[in-house]
Amino acid sequence: MQSLTHSQITVMFLAVGTLLLLARAFGEVARRFGQPAVLGEMLAGILLGPTVLGQLAPDLMAALFPREGPNALVLSSFATLSVALFLLVAGLEVDLSTATRQGRTAITVSALGIAVPFALGFGAASLAPASLGGVVHDNPWIFPLFFATALSISALPVIAKTLMDLDLYRTDLGMVVIAAAVLNDLAGWIIFAVILGLIGTAGGHALPVSMTIALTLGFTAFVLTAGRAAVHRALPWVLAHTSWPGGILAFALALALFSAAFTEWIGVHAIFGAFLVGVAIGDSSHMREQTRATINHFVSSIFAPLFFATIGLRVDFVANFDPGLVLLVLVIACAGKIAGCGLAGLWSGMERREAWAVGFAMNARGAMEIILGLLALQYGVIDQRMFVALVVMALATSLMSGPAIQRLLQRERPRRFTDHLSGKTFVCPLRAQDRRGAITELAEALAPSTGLAPGVIDAAAWAREEIMSTGTGGGLALPHARLPSIRAPAVALGVSPEGVDFNSPDGEPAHLIFLILTPAEDGGAQLEILKDIAKTFRDTGLREKATRARTHTEFLAALKTH
Amino acid sequence: MQSLTHSQITVMFLAVGTLLLLARAFGEVARRFGQPAVLGEMLAGILLGPTVLGQLAPDLMAALFPREGPNALVLSSFATLSVALFLLVAGLEVDLSTATRQGRTAITVSALGIAVPFALGFGAASLAPASLGGVVHDNPWIFPLFFATALSISALPVIAKTLMDLDLYRTDLGMVVIAAAVLNDLAGWIIFAVILGLIGTAGGHALPVSMTIALTLGFTAFVLTAGRAAVHRALPWVLAHTSWPGGILAFALALALFSAAFTEWIGVHAIFGAFLVGVAIGDSSHMREQTRATINHFVSSIFAPLFFATIGLRVDFVANFDPGLVLLVLVIACAGKIAGCGLAGLWSGMERREAWAVGFAMNARGAMEIILGLLALQYGVIDQRMFVALVVMALATSLMSGPAIQRLLQRERPRRFTDHLSGKTFVCPLRAQDRRGAITELAEALAPSTGLAPGVIDAAAWAREEIMSTGTGGGLALPHARLPSIRAPAVALGVSPEGVDFNSPDGEPAHLIFLILTPAEDGGAQLEILKDIAKTFRDTGLREKATRARTHTEFLAALKTH
Repeated sequence: MQSLTHSQITVMFLAVGTLLLLARAFGEVARRFGQPAVLGEMLAGILLGPTVLGQLAPDLMAALFPREGPNALVLSSFATLSVALFLLVAGLEVDLSTATRQGRTAITVSALGIAVPFALGFGAASLAPASLGGVVHDNPWIFPLFFATALSISALPVIAKTLMDLDLYRTDLGMVVIAAAVLNDLAGWIIFAVILGLIGTAGGHALPVSMTIALTLGFTAFVLTAGRAAVHRALPWVLAHTSWPGGILAFALALALFSAAFTEWIGVHAIFGAFLVGVAIGDSSHMREQTRATINHFVSSIFAPLFFATIGLRVDFVANFDPGLVLLVLVIACAGKIAGCGLAGLWSGMERREAWAVGFAMNARGAMEIILGLLALQYGVIDQRMFVALVVMALATSLMSGPAIQRLLQRERPRRFTDHLSGKTFVCPLRAQDRRGAITELAEALAPSTGLAPGVIDAAAWAREEIMSTGTGGGLALPHARLPSIRAPAVALGVSPEGVDFNSPDGEPAHLIFLILTPAEDGGAQLEILKDIAKTFRDTGLREKATRARTHTEFLAALKTH
Repeated sequence: MQSLTHSQITVMFLAVGTLLLLARAFGEVARRFGQPAVLGEMLAGILLGPTVLGQLAPDLMAALFPREGPNALVLSSFATLSVALFLLVAGLEVDLSTATRQGRTAITVSALGIAVPFALGFGAASLAPASLGGVVHDNPWIFPLFFATALSISALPVIAKTLMDLDLYRTDLGMVVIAAAVLNDLAGWIIFAVILGLIGTAGGHALPVSMTIALTLGFTAFVLTAGRAAVHRALPWVLAHTSWPGGILAFALALALFSAAFTEWIGVHAIFGAFLVGVAIGDSSHMREQTRATINHFVSSIFAPLFFATIGLRVDFVANFDPGLVLLVLVIACAGKIAGCGLAGLWSGMERREAWAVGFAMNARGAMEIILGLLALQYGVIDQRMFVALVVMALATSLMSGPAIQRLLQRERPRRFTDHLSGKTFVCPLRAQDRRGAITELAEALAPSTGLAPGVIDAAAWAREEIMSTGTGGGLALPHARLPSIRAPAVALGVSPEGVDFNSPDGEPAHLIFLILTPAEDGGAQLEILKDIAKTFRDTGLREKATRARTHTEFLAALKTH
């Protein structure tokens, strides 16, 4: 079998390793700031691609990521495979049965959420295709159709993540949004598949266009009915007779690959087939949460970062950044989606603020839009300027979604004690042998970061402690105080291997002693943080693991991996 | 970026999907028969490659798995990446700290386990290189060195699996074998890397041979000391500050890819670098069992099957099967390894049977040997006949290992009730309302497969039941009987949603009623199966899940995924 030479293999390992490491690292940073990982992953690619590395060290870039030759071929094939797997996972998250149960409101929101941006996009693109970066095509419908579809698709994963962060996922509003996004995704992808059929055939593909479209719709209907039923019957057999989770993983992947091959063959892109298989499998009640999570980890920690980073390798994001176009696309996209979904919400009888929150939630585009745009670029439907504008629009709508909903509904992210604990306020081992000494020692640790004198903190916490002991039992103690002079909560943790007697109800000494300071004006903060700590350490195993931590990092690692 | 055409993408998805599906399916079948999965995975490749498909439908094979061109390039790159990841996992399983603690016996077994087969192999290959399928090379030492090393390496994963199956893993004997295999693996791969250095340089590689060997040894020493310490320090940070398990997965993979690039560049193969990183990471106490398992699933359910299946695509296993050579290789390999390790065991004061059991355990080669052979084939050190002989030897030694140890130590695999339960003896829902009726109904279900009259089974089980009720509480009842007229145990399960009163100590009705028949001569069988059922259903959640199963398949799926 023909294979790469030694130096090509070396480059392949280096290229994939660099892409993976940088994409993951930037993705983690993006998440740390509450943003979707895809933002960081693409940024990694932009740094490694023509936009930055190509300017600074063009030879290095050409050596690591050549645009032609065997290495380019192998890397782009990895990317194709990765994006197909990403769409498989996106499909798995589409829960059709639940979505259709949400009834009329969801359907109205979804229908108007497609119709309004579609109409706006189609109108704009028909009137002025050239100024929107459309490429002249034999078939004048293709660019307007594509542009309209690109504005209409929402990004289910981003929307779900935003709702979860705001604790809205399991509310009525959350379920309506998710259901609408599911229907929206499905409809959008089917429309897009039809457009791809139009392009593919115009581009000299084997099948006539009517055949491609008929096969696309027929295959979709087949997979979502007979295919779905067959998968539902096959899954228990696969689970029973193969090793777990390897068997089900391979089964899902193989189905997705075959379906991808079929849709690629009929002239729409491979990813559509993978997406359909995801929907068919994800809808089965035999698909356990754990299996879904395993496939999800597997794909979103390795394949998705690789794919999104390679996007940055293809396009120069600075040279093709056209501020006017970016603004125009952003305005049309937001206006269409927010107005469409918001009005649908109002008509369905939602309160005003809730209806607009639905609009902003559905407005998030994220990864899906970017994939769509990339395909359009590869098929020659849009130029690089338009692609960059679509990417910016996708990221900007995702970024604004969370804060806008938070504002409209006056929701706050629940506060977590880990946000206020740092390496400097992690005291281990705690030297103090008694309650009094422990509080003093932790007050000293908190003094630098709060800007208060240790004595002030100590006095306030001890005054509270004297009223009633804060030992909660189970090796935990939670001394706390409200102080008018601090702006944000501050938490110190002392780990005492020998334990300190805190008069706990169970008579056990405390090994994990948290000192919690909150602003006097912020009524809810203290209770939220106390509740968060109590809930986190309800688990005995975690308490023991945390007591064995010797540094702040080890402590966080114990929390994460438990 | 240059990419595949539509039809090439279609072929890529089809090829990968077919390889994955067939390899996993055959791997599962092999496991079902208690054999290593790699046996089935390679068989899938042999079926799809020149050996079978190439004979039956050469055009189809050429279309799906072309030997030249972009698709061949992409598939062989996938295989290269997959085998590097497989070696990463193999490295993760090498627990150096534990191995070195096993002390002198392990070191003796490991040292003689390398020295004796190495000496035998070296002698044979020096005397008659041509008749052993060696390829004439500028450097006459290369073939004997390779052949000697190929005979000396054990296969840690196969050995560990065999010991676990026989419940020997945590015994003294098991620990010695594992420790010896770990040292053996490590030493074997270092020797092999040096040989690759010799070949690579002889084959026109950039670096002089002394440089390659110095870099190999230096890099090995560096990764296993400073690298290992750095990883140990970095791991808690990665766990604490990235999402889990995606962060640690990407970290491990990226390190492995960089190290692979380095070793490929210095002229030994990429897999050696991945293996070293695996050893360095796997040895850290911060590497939790769960993280290891996640990486392992990820690799052994997708990448390993893909790689081993592609081996079958490269070689015609029938045309290159030389019975004399196969026999010769097998005899030299077994004689050297079993004698070396057995004698080492005897000298270290083991009992005779135990010492030979150690010999047979260490004799298992499995996947490692095959990878070694493939590299030698690609580097032109051996011909296809020798490669086939090595593969057969690797599989045969793995297959004989388990049964031989079982014989020597008179160990039996513990019997599991699921082995004796079938779809025909799964009765759901059980119609009977009382104890008497339930036993009669289950006796009827067991009659066809045991060849006994239902009345005979019923009478025996009821006689036992009348002495003392077999309701154990927790919704379980275990009526049973010994019968002189059956050969093997037989189990029926009745699932009663309403429950049947079995006079259980807790007063609860039984929902899962097992009727267990065992041969009168087989004293241990009844107790083993009863214990197995009781242990399996100790978990309340599983009992509830199993009670909801409506078919044998759903029942097995519940057991598997719990």
